[in-house]
Amino acid sequence: MATPVKVHGPPLSTAVSRVLACLIEKDVQFQLIPVNMSKGEHKSSDFHKIQPFGQVPAFQDESTSLFESRAICRYVCEKYAEKGNKGLYGSNPLAKASIDQWLEAEGQSFNPPSSVLVFQLAFAPRMKIKQDQSLINQNHDKLAKVLEVYEKRLGESRFLAGDEFSLADLSHLPNTHYLVNATDRGELFTSKKNVGRWWAEISSRDSWKKVVDMQKHSS
Amino acid sequence: MATPVKVHGPPLSTAVSRVLACLIEKDVQFQLIPVNMSKGEHKSSDFHKIQPFGQVPAFQDESTSLFESRAICRYVCEKYAEKGNKGLYGSNPLAKASIDQWLEAEGQSFNPPSSVLVFQLAFAPRMKIKQDQSLINQNHDKLAKVLEVYEKRLGESRFLAGDEFSLADLSHLPNTHYLVNATDRGELFTSKKNVGRWWAEISSRDSWKKVVDMQKHSS
Repeated sequence: MATPVKVHGPPLSTAVSRVLACLIEKDVQFQLIPVNMSKGEHKSSDFHKIQPFGQVPAFQDESTSLFESRAICRYVCEKYAEKGNKGLYGSNPLAKASIDQWLEAEGQSFNPPSSVLVFQLAFAPRMKIKQDQSLINQNHDKLAKVLEVYEKRLGESRFLAGDEFSLADLSHLPNTHYLVNATDRGELFTSKKNVGRWWAEISSRDSWKKVVDMQKHSS
Repeated sequence: MATPVKVHGPPLSTAVSRVLACLIEKDVQFQLIPVNMSKGEHKSSDFHKIQPFGQVPAFQDESTSLFESRAICRYVCEKYAEKGNKGLYGSNPLAKASIDQWLEAEGQSFNPPSSVLVFQLAFAPRMKIKQDQSLINQNHDKLAKVLEVYEKRLGESRFLAGDEFSLADLSHLPNTHYLVNATDRGELFTSKKNVGRWWAEISSRDSWKKVVDMQKHSS
Protein backbone atom coordinates (compact mmCIF):
# COMPACT_ATOMS: atom_id res chain seq x y z
CA MET A 1 0.00 0.00 0.00
CA ALA A 2 1.25 3.48 -0.89
CA THR A 3 2.20 5.88 1.89
CA PRO A 4 -0.59 8.45 2.36
CA VAL A 5 0.20 11.95 1.15
CA LYS A 6 0.46 14.59 3.87
CA VAL A 7 -1.54 17.82 4.07
CA HIS A 8 -0.30 20.32 6.64
CA GLY A 9 -2.91 22.82 7.82
CA PRO A 10 -6.38 23.21 9.38
CA PRO A 11 -9.46 22.11 7.34
CA LEU A 12 -11.13 25.43 8.24
CA SER A 13 -8.66 27.18 5.92
CA THR A 14 -10.17 27.70 2.47
CA ALA A 15 -6.95 26.73 0.71
CA VAL A 16 -6.55 23.56 2.81
CA SER A 17 -10.16 22.53 2.17
CA ARG A 18 -9.65 23.00 -1.60
CA VAL A 19 -6.86 20.41 -1.49
CA LEU A 20 -8.88 18.05 0.74
CA ALA A 21 -11.87 18.15 -1.64
CA CYS A 22 -9.54 17.29 -4.53
CA LEU A 23 -7.91 14.38 -2.67
CA ILE A 24 -11.32 12.93 -1.74
CA GLU A 25 -12.59 13.28 -5.34
CA LYS A 26 -9.44 11.49 -6.52
CA ASP A 27 -9.75 8.82 -3.83
CA VAL A 28 -6.17 9.47 -2.69
CA GLN A 29 -5.37 8.50 0.92
CA PHE A 30 -4.08 11.40 2.99
CA GLN A 31 -2.90 12.23 6.45
CA LEU A 32 -3.91 15.62 7.84
CA ILE A 33 -1.20 17.22 9.96
CA PRO A 34 -2.42 19.97 12.29
CA VAL A 35 -0.78 23.39 12.11
CA ASN A 36 -1.80 25.58 15.03
CA MET A 37 -2.00 28.95 13.35
CA SER A 38 -3.13 30.81 16.47
CA LYS A 39 0.18 29.72 18.03
CA GLY A 40 2.03 30.86 14.87
CA GLU A 41 3.25 27.38 13.93
CA HIS A 42 3.01 28.35 10.21
CA LYS A 43 5.63 31.04 10.85
CA SER A 44 8.20 28.62 12.33
CA SER A 45 11.46 27.94 10.51
CA ASP A 46 10.59 24.22 10.21
CA PHE A 47 7.35 25.03 8.46
CA HIS A 48 9.08 27.54 6.16
CA LYS A 49 11.21 24.69 4.85
CA ILE A 50 8.13 23.17 3.20
CA GLN A 51 6.13 26.41 2.68
CA PRO A 52 8.47 29.39 2.22
CA PHE A 53 5.65 31.97 2.38
CA GLY A 54 4.51 30.67 5.80
CA GLN A 55 0.99 29.91 4.54
CA VAL A 56 -1.19 26.79 4.57
CA PRO A 57 -1.47 24.24 3.10
CA ALA A 58 1.87 22.57 2.62
CA PHE A 59 1.76 19.19 0.89
CA GLN A 60 4.11 16.20 0.83
CA ASP A 61 4.01 13.11 -1.37
CA GLU A 62 7.00 10.93 -0.48
CA SER A 63 9.99 13.15 -1.35
CA THR A 64 7.94 15.81 -3.17
CA SER A 65 6.98 18.96 -1.25
CA LEU A 66 4.55 21.44 -2.78
CA PHE A 67 2.62 24.56 -1.83
CA GLU A 68 -0.14 26.68 -3.44
CA SER A 69 -3.50 24.87 -3.29
CA ARG A 70 -4.31 25.06 -7.01
CA ALA A 71 -0.85 23.76 -7.97
CA ILE A 72 -1.25 20.89 -5.47
CA CYS A 73 -4.65 20.03 -6.99
CA ARG A 74 -3.18 19.97 -10.50
CA TYR A 75 -0.34 17.72 -9.29
CA VAL A 76 -2.75 15.30 -7.56
CA CYS A 77 -4.84 15.02 -10.74
CA GLU A 78 -1.77 14.35 -12.92
CA LYS A 79 0.02 11.99 -10.54
CA TYR A 80 -3.10 10.00 -9.65
CA ALA A 81 -4.68 10.21 -13.11
CA GLU A 82 -6.06 6.66 -12.88
CA LYS A 83 -7.64 6.99 -9.43
CA GLY A 84 -11.07 8.28 -8.35
CA ASN A 85 -12.76 10.94 -10.50
CA LYS A 86 -10.80 10.59 -13.75
CA GLY A 87 -12.41 13.59 -15.43
CA LEU A 88 -11.62 16.10 -12.67
CA TYR A 89 -8.84 17.74 -14.70
CA GLY A 90 -10.20 16.78 -18.13
CA SER A 91 -9.59 13.78 -20.32
CA ASN A 92 -8.26 15.60 -23.40
CA PRO A 93 -6.14 18.73 -24.01
CA LEU A 94 -9.11 20.92 -24.98
CA ALA A 95 -11.15 19.98 -21.89
CA LYS A 96 -8.05 20.66 -19.79
CA ALA A 97 -7.54 24.08 -21.37
CA SER A 98 -11.14 25.00 -20.52
CA ILE A 99 -10.65 23.81 -16.93
CA ASP A 100 -7.38 25.79 -16.64
CA GLN A 101 -9.14 28.87 -17.97
CA TRP A 102 -11.93 28.74 -15.37
CA LEU A 103 -9.51 27.71 -12.62
CA GLU A 104 -7.53 30.88 -13.43
CA ALA A 105 -10.77 32.89 -13.50
CA GLU A 106 -11.40 31.57 -9.97
CA GLY A 107 -7.87 32.43 -8.82
CA GLN A 108 -7.70 35.86 -10.50
CA SER A 109 -11.30 37.17 -10.59
CA PHE A 110 -13.43 35.23 -8.08
CA ASN A 111 -10.99 34.62 -5.24
CA PRO A 112 -9.77 38.19 -4.59
CA PRO A 113 -13.18 39.73 -3.75
CA SER A 114 -14.67 36.56 -2.25
CA SER A 115 -11.74 35.95 0.09
CA VAL A 116 -11.91 39.54 1.37
CA LEU A 117 -15.64 39.05 2.09
CA VAL A 118 -15.02 35.69 3.80
CA PHE A 119 -12.39 37.26 6.02
CA GLN A 120 -14.31 40.44 6.80
CA LEU A 121 -17.76 38.89 7.30
CA ALA A 122 -17.08 35.38 8.64
CA PHE A 123 -13.64 35.43 10.30
CA ALA A 124 -13.10 39.01 11.55
CA PRO A 125 -16.08 38.93 14.00
CA ARG A 126 -14.89 35.60 15.51
CA MET A 127 -11.36 37.00 15.82
CA LYS A 128 -12.70 40.26 17.30
CA ILE A 129 -11.15 42.26 14.45
CA LYS A 130 -12.99 45.44 13.40
CA GLN A 131 -14.74 45.12 10.03
CA ASP A 132 -13.87 47.53 7.21
CA GLN A 133 -17.23 48.53 5.72
CA SER A 134 -15.81 50.31 2.68
CA LEU A 135 -13.67 47.28 1.80
CA ILE A 136 -16.75 45.06 2.20
CA ASN A 137 -18.86 47.24 -0.12
CA GLN A 138 -16.13 47.51 -2.73
CA ASN A 139 -15.56 43.74 -2.82
CA HIS A 140 -19.27 42.96 -2.74
CA ASP A 141 -19.65 44.99 -5.95
CA LYS A 142 -16.62 43.31 -7.56
CA LEU A 143 -17.95 39.84 -6.73
CA ALA A 144 -21.43 40.73 -8.00
CA LYS A 145 -19.91 41.64 -11.39
CA VAL A 146 -17.94 38.38 -11.56
CA LEU A 147 -21.09 36.42 -10.75
CA GLU A 148 -22.96 38.10 -13.61
CA VAL A 149 -20.41 36.52 -15.97
CA TYR A 150 -20.84 33.18 -14.20
CA GLU A 151 -24.65 33.42 -14.45
CA LYS A 152 -24.37 33.79 -18.22
CA ARG A 153 -21.80 31.02 -18.55
CA LEU A 154 -23.82 28.62 -16.40
CA GLY A 155 -26.85 29.31 -18.57
CA GLU A 156 -24.91 27.81 -21.50
CA SER A 157 -23.13 25.00 -19.72
CA ARG A 158 -23.92 22.74 -16.74
CA PHE A 159 -20.54 23.36 -15.09
CA LEU A 160 -18.00 26.14 -15.58
CA ALA A 161 -15.62 24.31 -17.90
CA GLY A 162 -18.23 22.16 -19.67
CA ASP A 163 -20.68 19.31 -19.06
CA GLU A 164 -18.66 17.66 -16.29
CA PHE A 165 -17.81 18.70 -12.74
CA SER A 166 -14.13 19.70 -12.72
CA LEU A 167 -11.31 21.22 -10.70
CA ALA A 168 -12.61 24.62 -11.84
CA ASP A 169 -15.93 24.13 -10.01
CA LEU A 170 -14.26 22.43 -7.04
CA SER A 171 -11.96 25.39 -6.53
CA HIS A 172 -14.98 27.65 -5.84
CA LEU A 173 -16.34 25.46 -3.02
CA PRO A 174 -14.35 26.77 -0.01
CA ASN A 175 -15.07 30.52 -0.33
CA THR A 176 -18.65 30.03 -1.54
CA HIS A 177 -19.39 27.68 1.35
CA TYR A 178 -18.49 30.39 3.88
CA LEU A 179 -20.30 33.14 1.97
CA VAL A 180 -23.52 31.09 1.73
CA ASN A 181 -23.42 29.55 5.22
CA ALA A 182 -21.56 31.99 7.46
CA THR A 183 -22.36 35.48 6.09
CA ASP A 184 -25.39 37.48 4.97
CA ARG A 185 -24.20 37.47 1.32
CA GLY A 186 -25.50 34.02 0.30
CA GLU A 187 -28.13 35.63 -1.95
CA LEU A 188 -25.39 36.71 -4.33
CA PHE A 189 -25.37 33.02 -5.29
CA THR A 190 -28.72 31.55 -4.31
CA SER A 191 -30.89 34.28 -5.87
CA LYS A 192 -29.41 33.64 -9.33
CA LYS A 193 -31.11 30.97 -11.43
CA ASN A 194 -28.02 29.33 -12.93
CA VAL A 195 -25.44 30.11 -10.26
CA GLY A 196 -27.94 28.92 -7.62
CA ARG A 197 -28.54 25.65 -9.49
CA TRP A 198 -24.78 25.15 -9.92
CA TRP A 199 -24.05 25.86 -6.26
CA ALA A 200 -26.75 23.42 -5.09
CA GLU A 201 -25.24 20.74 -7.32
CA ILE A 202 -21.54 21.17 -6.53
CA SER A 203 -22.00 21.69 -2.79
CA SER A 204 -24.00 18.47 -2.44
CA ARG A 205 -21.22 16.27 -3.77
CA ASP A 206 -20.09 13.61 -1.28
CA SER A 207 -16.51 14.86 -1.42
CA TRP A 208 -17.48 18.36 -0.29
CA LYS A 209 -19.86 17.05 2.40
CA LYS A 210 -16.92 15.10 3.83
CA VAL A 211 -14.77 18.25 3.91
CA VAL A 212 -17.53 20.21 5.68
CA ASP A 213 -17.75 17.38 8.18
CA MET A 214 -14.00 17.58 8.81
CA GLN A 215 -14.37 21.33 9.33
CA LYS A 216 -17.11 20.77 11.94
CA HIS A 217 -14.92 18.37 13.86
CA SER A 218 -11.84 20.59 13.89
CA SER A 219 -11.17 23.71 15.86
CA MET B 1 1.32 25.90 -43.05
CA ALA B 2 -0.81 26.17 -39.93
CA THR B 3 -3.02 29.22 -39.47
CA PRO B 4 -1.41 31.61 -36.98
CA VAL B 5 -3.07 31.80 -33.56
CA LYS B 6 -4.72 35.13 -32.74
CA VAL B 7 -3.99 37.32 -29.73
CA HIS B 8 -6.46 40.13 -29.15
CA GLY B 9 -5.14 43.05 -27.11
CA PRO B 10 -2.38 45.67 -26.89
CA PRO B 11 1.24 44.52 -26.18
CA LEU B 12 1.48 47.22 -23.51
CA SER B 13 -0.91 45.18 -21.35
CA THR B 14 0.99 43.00 -18.89
CA ALA B 15 -1.32 40.02 -19.47
CA VAL B 16 -1.03 40.34 -23.26
CA SER B 17 2.76 40.57 -23.10
CA ARG B 18 2.88 37.42 -20.92
CA VAL B 19 1.15 35.48 -23.72
CA LEU B 20 3.36 37.05 -26.42
CA ALA B 21 6.55 36.08 -24.56
CA CYS B 22 5.27 32.51 -24.31
CA LEU B 23 4.35 32.30 -28.01
CA ILE B 24 7.80 33.61 -29.02
CA GLU B 25 9.56 31.14 -26.67
CA LYS B 26 7.50 28.34 -28.22
CA ASP B 27 8.14 29.60 -31.77
CA VAL B 28 4.40 29.64 -32.50
CA GLN B 29 3.27 32.03 -35.25
CA PHE B 30 0.69 34.54 -34.10
CA GLN B 31 -1.34 37.43 -35.37
CA LEU B 32 -1.83 40.37 -33.01
CA ILE B 33 -5.28 41.92 -33.26
CA PRO B 34 -5.51 45.45 -31.84
CA VAL B 35 -8.15 46.19 -29.21
CA ASN B 36 -8.51 49.91 -28.62
CA MET B 37 -9.11 49.98 -24.87
CA SER B 38 -9.31 53.78 -24.66
CA LYS B 39 -12.31 53.53 -27.02
CA GLY B 40 -13.78 50.74 -24.84
CA GLU B 41 -13.56 48.06 -27.54
CA HIS B 42 -12.91 45.42 -24.83
CA LYS B 43 -16.35 46.21 -23.40
CA SER B 44 -18.20 45.58 -26.70
CA SER B 45 -20.62 42.67 -27.02
CA ASP B 46 -18.53 41.13 -29.83
CA PHE B 47 -15.45 41.09 -27.61
CA HIS B 48 -17.45 39.64 -24.69
CA LYS B 49 -18.20 36.60 -26.87
CA ILE B 50 -14.52 35.61 -26.70
CA GLN B 51 -13.66 37.21 -23.32
CA PRO B 52 -16.71 37.29 -21.04
CA PHE B 53 -15.00 39.45 -18.38
CA GLY B 54 -14.19 42.17 -20.97
CA GLN B 55 -10.45 41.95 -20.27
CA VAL B 56 -7.41 41.39 -22.48
CA PRO B 57 -6.01 39.18 -23.85
CA ALA B 58 -8.43 36.96 -25.69
CA PHE B 59 -6.88 34.12 -27.66
CA GLN B 60 -8.02 32.02 -30.60
CA ASP B 61 -6.48 28.90 -32.10
CA GLU B 62 -8.68 27.75 -34.98
CA SER B 63 -12.00 26.93 -33.27
CA THR B 64 -10.63 27.20 -29.70
CA SER B 65 -11.17 30.47 -27.79
CA LEU B 66 -9.46 31.03 -24.47
CA PHE B 67 -8.91 33.79 -21.92
CA GLU B 68 -6.75 34.23 -18.78
CA SER B 69 -3.09 34.72 -19.72
CA ARG B 70 -1.67 31.93 -17.54
CA ALA B 71 -4.23 29.42 -18.85
CA ILE B 72 -3.40 30.47 -22.44
CA CYS B 73 0.32 29.95 -21.74
CA ARG B 74 -0.32 26.46 -20.32
CA TYR B 75 -2.43 25.60 -23.39
CA VAL B 76 0.26 26.86 -25.81
CA CYS B 77 2.91 24.74 -24.05
CA GLU B 78 0.73 21.60 -24.13
CA LYS B 79 -0.60 22.03 -27.67
CA TYR B 80 2.77 22.98 -29.17
CA ALA B 81 4.84 20.66 -26.96
CA GLU B 82 7.24 19.83 -29.79
CA LYS B 83 7.91 23.40 -30.92
CA GLY B 84 10.43 26.00 -29.70
CA ASN B 85 11.53 25.86 -26.05
CA LYS B 86 10.48 22.31 -25.11
CA GLY B 87 11.29 22.70 -21.41
CA LEU B 88 9.18 25.82 -20.84
CA TYR B 89 6.47 23.87 -18.99
CA GLY B 90 8.71 21.03 -17.82
CA SER B 91 9.60 17.73 -19.37
CA ASN B 92 8.37 15.44 -16.58
CA PRO B 93 5.50 15.54 -14.03
CA LEU B 94 7.69 16.65 -11.12
CA ALA B 95 9.28 19.53 -13.05
CA LYS B 96 5.78 20.55 -14.15
CA ALA B 97 4.49 20.50 -10.56
CA SER B 98 7.33 22.79 -9.50
CA ILE B 99 6.55 25.16 -12.40
CA ASP B 100 2.82 25.15 -11.52
CA GLN B 101 3.70 25.90 -7.91
CA TRP B 102 5.79 28.98 -8.77
CA LEU B 103 3.36 30.04 -11.49
CA GLU B 104 0.64 30.04 -8.81
CA ALA B 105 2.97 31.92 -6.43
CA GLU B 106 3.29 34.54 -9.17
CA GLY B 107 -0.48 34.70 -9.72
CA GLN B 108 -1.44 34.68 -6.03
CA SER B 109 1.45 36.35 -4.16
CA PHE B 110 3.57 38.36 -6.62
CA ASN B 111 0.96 39.68 -9.04
CA PRO B 112 -1.49 41.33 -6.60
CA PRO B 113 0.98 43.82 -5.05
CA SER B 114 3.13 44.25 -8.18
CA SER B 115 0.16 44.98 -10.45
CA VAL B 116 -1.13 47.63 -8.01
CA LEU B 117 2.32 49.27 -8.04
CA VAL B 118 2.54 49.10 -11.86
CA PHE B 119 -0.84 50.76 -12.18
CA GLN B 120 -0.29 53.39 -9.49
CA LEU B 121 3.31 54.31 -10.36
CA ALA B 122 3.58 53.73 -14.12
CA PHE B 123 0.07 54.01 -15.59
CA ALA B 124 -1.88 56.40 -13.30
CA PRO B 125 0.41 59.42 -13.99
CA ARG B 126 0.12 58.89 -17.78
CA MET B 127 -3.64 58.58 -17.47
CA LYS B 128 -3.78 61.65 -15.20
CA ILE B 129 -5.31 59.55 -12.39
CA LYS B 130 -4.49 60.62 -8.83
CA GLN B 131 -2.09 58.23 -7.07
CA ASP B 132 -3.15 56.58 -3.80
CA GLN B 133 -0.10 56.85 -1.55
CA SER B 134 -1.39 54.57 1.20
CA LEU B 135 -2.19 51.85 -1.36
CA ILE B 136 1.31 52.28 -2.81
CA ASN B 137 2.99 51.95 0.61
CA GLN B 138 0.91 48.94 1.60
CA ASN B 139 1.66 47.08 -1.65
CA HIS B 140 5.32 48.07 -1.62
CA ASP B 141 5.62 46.33 1.77
CA LYS B 142 3.72 43.26 0.56
CA LEU B 143 5.92 42.96 -2.52
CA ALA B 144 9.09 43.41 -0.45
CA LYS B 145 8.05 40.42 1.70
CA VAL B 146 7.36 38.26 -1.34
CA LEU B 147 10.76 39.17 -2.79
CA GLU B 148 12.49 38.09 0.45
CA VAL B 149 11.14 34.58 -0.22
CA TYR B 150 12.30 34.81 -3.85
CA GLU B 151 15.77 35.96 -2.76
CA LYS B 152 16.14 32.85 -0.61
CA ARG B 153 14.76 30.55 -3.30
CA LEU B 154 16.99 32.03 -6.00
CA GLY B 155 19.99 31.49 -3.74
CA GLU B 156 19.28 27.75 -3.92
CA SER B 157 18.22 27.48 -7.54
CA ARG B 158 19.12 29.30 -10.77
CA PHE B 159 15.47 29.81 -11.73
CA LEU B 160 12.28 29.73 -9.65
CA ALA B 161 11.19 26.21 -10.52
CA GLY B 162 14.65 24.67 -10.92
CA ASP B 163 17.71 24.81 -13.15
CA GLU B 164 15.87 25.78 -16.32
CA PHE B 165 14.04 28.93 -17.38
CA SER B 166 10.30 28.13 -17.28
CA LEU B 167 6.80 29.54 -17.57
CA ALA B 168 7.09 30.45 -13.87
CA ASP B 169 9.96 32.88 -14.54
CA LEU B 170 8.40 34.12 -17.78
CA SER B 171 5.18 35.03 -16.00
CA HIS B 172 7.08 37.57 -13.84
CA LEU B 173 8.50 39.48 -16.82
CA PRO B 174 5.63 41.90 -17.61
CA ASN B 175 5.12 43.45 -14.15
CA THR B 176 8.81 43.43 -13.24
CA HIS B 177 9.71 45.12 -16.54
CA TYR B 178 7.48 48.09 -15.68
CA LEU B 179 8.62 48.24 -12.05
CA VAL B 180 12.31 48.25 -13.03
CA ASN B 181 12.05 50.51 -16.08
CA ALA B 182 9.09 52.80 -15.51
CA THR B 183 8.93 53.39 -11.73
CA ASP B 184 11.26 54.31 -8.87
CA ARG B 185 10.90 50.82 -7.30
CA GLY B 186 13.42 48.94 -9.44
CA GLU B 187 15.76 48.60 -6.45
CA LEU B 188 13.35 46.13 -4.90
CA PHE B 189 14.76 43.76 -7.52
CA THR B 190 18.14 45.08 -8.59
CA SER B 191 19.53 45.63 -5.08
CA LYS B 192 19.07 41.95 -4.20
CA LYS B 193 21.94 39.62 -5.06
CA ASN B 194 19.95 36.64 -6.30
CA VAL B 195 16.78 38.36 -7.48
CA GLY B 196 18.95 40.92 -9.31
CA ARG B 197 20.98 38.18 -11.01
CA TRP B 198 17.76 36.34 -11.97
CA TRP B 199 16.12 39.48 -13.34
CA ALA B 200 19.19 40.34 -15.46
CA GLU B 201 19.13 36.84 -16.90
CA ILE B 202 15.42 36.44 -17.66
CA SER B 203 14.94 39.97 -19.00
CA SER B 204 17.77 39.59 -21.49
CA ARG B 205 16.21 36.60 -23.25
CA ASP B 206 15.57 37.21 -26.94
CA SER B 207 11.87 36.42 -26.52
CA TRP B 208 11.39 39.18 -23.94
CA LYS B 209 13.48 41.69 -25.91
CA LYS B 210 11.13 41.09 -28.87
CA VAL B 211 8.09 41.77 -26.67
CA VAL B 212 9.63 45.01 -25.37
CA ASP B 213 10.29 46.00 -28.95
CA MET B 214 6.64 45.36 -29.83
CA GLN B 215 5.62 47.50 -26.85
CA LYS B 216 7.83 50.37 -28.07
CA HIS B 217 6.23 50.27 -31.51
CA SER B 218 2.66 50.21 -30.26
CA SER B 219 0.58 52.96 -28.76
